[in-house]
Amino acid sequence: MTWLDLSPDSLFGLANLPYGVFSARRRPDPGIGVRIGDSVLDLTRVLADAVFAEPSLNAFMAQGRGRWSEVRAQVSEMLTAERHRSAIEAALYPLSGVRLHMPFTPGDYADFFGNEYHAANAGRIFRPGAEPLSPNWKHLPVGYHGRSGTIVLSGTPVTRPRGQRKGPQDSAPAFGPSRRLDFEAEVGWVIGTGSPLGTPVTVGEFADHVFGAFLLNDWSSRDLQSWESQPLGPFLAKSFATSISPWIVPLDALEHARISPPPRDPEPLPYLADAGKWGLDLALEVRLNGHLVSRPPFATMYWTPAQMLAHLTANGASTRTGDLYASGTVSGPDREQRGCLLELSWGGAEPLTLADGSVRSFLADADEVSITATGPAPGGARIGFGEVAGRIDPAIG
Amino acid sequence: MTWLDLSPDSLFGLANLPYGVFSARRRPDPGIGVRIGDSVLDLTRVLADAVFAEPSLNAFMAQGRGRWSEVRAQVSEMLTAERHRSAIEAALYPLSGVRLHMPFTPGDYADFFGNEYHAANAGRIFRPGAEPLSPNWKHLPVGYHGRSGTIVLSGTPVTRPRGQRKGPQDSAPAFGPSRRLDFEAEVGWVIGTGSPLGTPVTVGEFADHVFGAFLLNDWSSRDLQSWESQPLGPFLAKSFATSISPWIVPLDALEHARISPPPRDPEPLPYLADAGKWGLDLALEVRLNGHLVSRPPFATMYWTPAQMLAHLTANGASTRTGDLYASGTVSGPDREQRGCLLELSWGGAEPLTLADGSVRSFLADADEVSITATGPAPGGARIGFGEVAGRIDPAIG
Repeated sequence: MTWLDLSPDSLFGLANLPYGVFSARRRPDPGIGVRIGDSVLDLTRVLADAVFAEPSLNAFMAQGRGRWSEVRAQVSEMLTAERHRSAIEAALYPLSGVRLHMPFTPGDYADFFGNEYHAANAGRIFRPGAEPLSPNWKHLPVGYHGRSGTIVLSGTPVTRPRGQRKGPQDSAPAFGPSRRLDFEAEVGWVIGTGSPLGTPVTVGEFADHVFGAFLLNDWSSRDLQSWESQPLGPFLAKSFATSISPWIVPLDALEHARISPPPRDPEPLPYLADAGKWGLDLALEVRLNGHLVSRPPFATMYWTPAQMLAHLTANGASTRTGDLYASGTVSGPDREQRGCLLELSWGGAEPLTLADGSVRSFLADADEVSITATGPAPGGARIGFGEVAGRIDPAIG
Repeated sequence: MTWLDLSPDSLFGLANLPYGVFSARRRPDPGIGVRIGDSVLDLTRVLADAVFAEPSLNAFMAQGRGRWSEVRAQVSEMLTAERHRSAIEAALYPLSGVRLHMPFTPGDYADFFGNEYHAANAGRIFRPGAEPLSPNWKHLPVGYHGRSGTIVLSGTPVTRPRGQRKGPQDSAPAFGPSRRLDFEAEVGWVIGTGSPLGTPVTVGEFADHVFGAFLLNDWSSRDLQSWESQPLGPFLAKSFATSISPWIVPLDALEHARISPPPRDPEPLPYLADAGKWGLDLALEVRLNGHLVSRPPFATMYWTPAQMLAHLTANGASTRTGDLYASGTVSGPDREQRGCLLELSWGGAEPLTLADGSVRSFLADADEVSITATGPAPGGARIGFGEVAGRIDPAIG
């Protein structure tokens, strides 16, 4: 189907075609590329549109859904029709030779808490004896705003945060390096076409506004979090860094992964009623120092990304190109499907033994966390998300 | 002291000189001006620096504290020395003839909860029977991130938000227009010089980073808030609109307003220890449909803006030019000093009667809220903040 020498089990075949921002030695200014196999196609070389020479996807994303489809079709055509071969080959860079950059300029960042297994586990651990889920949880996708200025690209080291922590046995809080540093495996969504103030985006309009998906690690300090969160929610426990994967998978590439979400009881209010089928059968994997520690199944998400966007804008809040939101930690019913160490070690009560014999309740300095994901594509193939990875640097000072 | 015909009790005399962004019929592109009395001085006409031709203060703010002082001194000189008179007069626009614009491009927006009277009243109203203040409250400035994309300029109408609400007597939540819409009178701070990831801004470095202050109305829907806020804090209850005043008062103009903050017990941890004296003796006034309903005293703030910035960055979070943060609702010990209707009407239990006989527990459609503030200046004079005002439009749909 393509003149490219592409392994049939490549996660970055023609069914995927994610967008990113890259530079290379003979192409020093960052511009937009499409990943195909282990190569990057330089769009500035093959498509005459100045948006591809921008150092972020924002201008292209703002062009809207019609243009996204058009470009995807053109790229697909160029990668398959033999007549384009020599022109395209000249515009391909081996992935190993490029530097990847932040794919888009983030606007507002909202993070949800939309997975029932994670929410219930977190409730049991943080509020033992109380109902695991708050009374609102099955009525609306609970969320909060995070800090967009500290969103970093995969590979950026994450410095262990310092902050106030106070355990139940401590008489007073102390300030110092977090002792309960965690990852959270999530899927994120970026707004391509914004929506004006006062105009909610309905569940059915999801695909008109969201450009694509990526992986996100919402690094979290559990000791800071449990002390600071009353009554206004997490703040410094999550604002020190949020890592995202470099490749934005277009919604069109997720068509084959769409499934019905789990049954919801009670029925959501009409403004959250499903329109289209935006559950997604994505398989996440989390590795800690190379050892597989979890396989969170995105199919278990209680709230879909379409419902999250409808909720986010139901009060009339506007959205802008580059605004992003994320699913919240993805977990499943089994222990080895839990998407964060808080759950995997049950708040530290059941430390995890890695394959190399090392034991972890929370992250140690120099630990490296990597999150990947794949989903079904036509013909039994699979598509992949770029990895989001980060290593913990020791606290400063 | 100045050749300008300026009333000695003007709130916008030489001691103030706040910055804003304006346009006028014969100056159609927005640029930077300084308010003096009831006029605006067009900085592009009198200072040769391209930053003043920008439609936001961001580029000027990024030049840093040394440059801020230099420009303030130059403007002051031009407005006093007779030899500049004809050149300056040609660059002055009557305030009544200009249009004001958003003064800066907002980055991240964090809102604090730093006033003890407000926090304790809110605790008593939202969580009757429990301790009014959460256990962390006197140890750290509690805060959360808000939505920066819905920050609007004073004068922008605010549409009543719709959302999920569920009273204690309701068996299930319903979706509809908020019934408990409120204002919150706050003071905001904008970052001029950012700080890199991993480098906290100490309490003593406050004035090197913060460019100036303004007034902020953190419109809040109390019915949405009480239903949605567990466990991650307020989200849609506050993300529909946040209004700011058009004039940014430089820190130098607040020198004379500086006072010691109230005594703190327990002593804050060392990273929050006072350095400099950043309590501020500002007098706020809140008007509802023209009737004075509250006089919140900023001098009662438990946490200073210098402590707030130190806390915000203590975990290593970076800041950028244009990032803003706000004090939280300003209240005082007396009923007529409470900075929001939640407190003024005690959650609706004690409705407020305005001077025209109308009664309010929360905001009605077409209500107009205006917040102003003044502070002491040398020689018994006072400086003023620009008003932040907004009218409630009915919910859509």
